[in-house]
Amino acid sequence: MTLSVQQTVKTTVRRSLATLDMMLDKAAAFATTKGFDVGVLLGSRLAPDMFPLTRQVQLASDTAKGMAGRLAGQTLPVFEDVETTLPELKERIARTMAFVDSIDAAAYDGAEQREIRIPTRAEVLEFRGDEYLLAFALPNLYFHVTAVYMILRHNGVELGKRDFLGAR
Amino acid sequence: MTLSVQQTVKTTVRRSLATLDMMLDKAAAFATTKGFDVGVLLGSRLAPDMFPLTRQVQLASDTAKGMAGRLAGQTLPVFEDVETTLPELKERIARTMAFVDSIDAAAYDGAEQREIRIPTRAEVLEFRGDEYLLAFALPNLYFHVTAVYMILRHNGVELGKRDFLGAR
Repeated sequence: MTLSVQQTVKTTVRRSLATLDMMLDKAAAFATTKGFDVGVLLGSRLAPDMFPLTRQVQLASDTAKGMAGRLAGQTLPVFEDVETTLPELKERIARTMAFVDSIDAAAYDGAEQREIRIPTRAEVLEFRGDEYLLAFALPNLYFHVTAVYMILRHNGVELGKRDFLGAR
Repeated sequence: MTLSVQQTVKTTVRRSLATLDMMLDKAAAFATTKGFDVGVLLGSRLAPDMFPLTRQVQLASDTAKGMAGRLAGQTLPVFEDVETTLPELKERIARTMAFVDSIDAAAYDGAEQREIRIPTRAEVLEFRGDEYLLAFALPNLYFHVTAVYMILRHNGVELGKRDFLGAR
């Protein structure tokens, strides 16, 4: 048995999205206990020119969707960034997981060698599949999930590394 | 060709440590420009009960060292947590990379199935190699590298996602 792209993508996405979902629940509970609107946390950021929590969740969703869809050669569904409430963000997370779960394992065959092209405003990024996974998609996904953790921790929500690593 | 544990570990460690090293340089340059001691940044944290930047770098080093060494069945070198200055932290990063680079590729044979045991204060964590890599080591490493990024960004250091993702 060797490590597979499908296993790497599914394990990472499933755990990351579950962690995000759990952190949103902890944010909601904290806001309720302290008696403030959880929207304050959703709009919080760590620097004036960084994205707030809501956008970090949307970007984690996009990264998870893109990682799975691109490596499996699927057409990516478009998720409009319209979420403004915590239940809407949780629904976005669930929708992302449902898309990743819908991909047939066989679609990942040859994913390591797949040519990945990502148009950005400035340029078109081009990767071989394994490079895209290890050097772009994984760090990107963890970046946004950790950003959510840090924003919440900075605002007093009780989270620990164990919450971040998630259930085994 | 399929994804390998060795490739995943080496790509991730090399890029993560390079990102850490670059962020430390940016922290030093920022402190110089603003005229304060960079030690202020090294002691900064995002919450009173979170680790400061120096400890985050040490933990990233430990995670990288542990990931490579455990999966390749090596005896882990002990790195004492004695760093108090930026050059010392950069040397710790270099020493970590040198250890990971010293491991022969063949040592990773069968890493997916290797039994990994990590004694902690509370319990002994047990994993199969692939589970350890995907569900423990990778999230842990990215957690600490992203923590450093967030501490610096929160304190005004100019960093962007591109810095985090690093050179290709």
